[in-house]
Amino acid sequence: MKSSPFFAIALTITGVGMAAAQVASAQPRPENASPIYGVTLPEGYRDWKFIAPAQEAPPLDELRAVLANDVAVEAYKEGVLPFPDGSVLVKLAYKRQQSTEFPPATVPGAPTTVQVMVKDSKKFPDSHGWGFGRFVNGKPVDVAQHETCLACHVGNVKDHDYVFTRYAH
Amino acid sequence: MKSSPFFAIALTITGVGMAAAQVASAQPRPENASPIYGVTLPEGYRDWKFIAPAQEAPPLDELRAVLANDVAVEAYKEGVLPFPDGSVLVKLAYKRQQSTEFPPATVPGAPTTVQVMVKDSKKFPDSHGWGFGRFVNGKPVDVAQHETCLACHVGNVKDHDYVFTRYAH
Repeated sequence: MKSSPFFAIALTITGVGMAAAQVASAQPRPENASPIYGVTLPEGYRDWKFIAPAQEAPPLDELRAVLANDVAVEAYKEGVLPFPDGSVLVKLAYKRQQSTEFPPATVPGAPTTVQVMVKDSKKFPDSHGWGFGRFVNGKPVDVAQHETCLACHVGNVKDHDYVFTRYAH
Repeated sequence: MKSSPFFAIALTITGVGMAAAQVASAQPRPENASPIYGVTLPEGYRDWKFIAPAQEAPPLDELRAVLANDVAVEAYKEGVLPFPDGSVLVKLAYKRQQSTEFPPATVPGAPTTVQVMVKDSKKFPDSHGWGFGRFVNGKPVDVAQHETCLACHVGNVKDHDYVFTRYAH
């Protein structure tokens, strides 16, 4: 059989997937847990404290907000890096929609994704202590999307413990 | 003395200011309280629960987020209108700034205003139960700016108890 670029890519992806599976192999992946990392939507996250808003340009064209649990909020406020184990960040994203009541404003339309980062240096030693989960309608998205998380965070924000969002004072 | 349009406008503004002063006359205005309404920045508001993000177009060009105290959050979740007495909403606003780490994103720059709405039907009978405060660097802005709050909320969102922001689910 002749090797092809596609085959090489497929092998690479499989390799990443297998390495990731080893990370999460200590326990079975819970229902609705993200591939690779086994991260689930944390209970009660919608009531967590607010870190910062953001806007994502088209084509996504979203309004976003990061919330965090108390461990992470404390670290943010104290300027502690790296984030301690137990820190959890959740990013809510919504389609950006023109306000019908106040023309200068755009406001949240339909929710799109919920993205989670969990710090657990024992569980995620191969991803700088972070586990990632991306969810649509409460269900994790596929392996391919989860394979993009780590490289982007490592490539852009390694000096902020791989976390993009800063606390909005 | 000949009356002028400018003079007529000045008289009207003075009249509004006087009527407003009567609303707040029951007790002396606390330090750092808003003119007209006597609303102060509520203690601990930065840790309140998150309602929704928004973006304000140029020239303000801001990212915003509304937080609320537990009374208001409960009303939002239960769909209770009008908001009960004791509800407090706080809107944080920041200059919108290009992310240097992730090109598609804009993120909070310098904070601009913090805007507060307090529901107290006894204290604010002439403004549908709401008191307003707009703060820059922790200090309330002037009377003229506070005179704009009520008319805009009445004109645009009287069917949502004079509150623009909806809960982002």
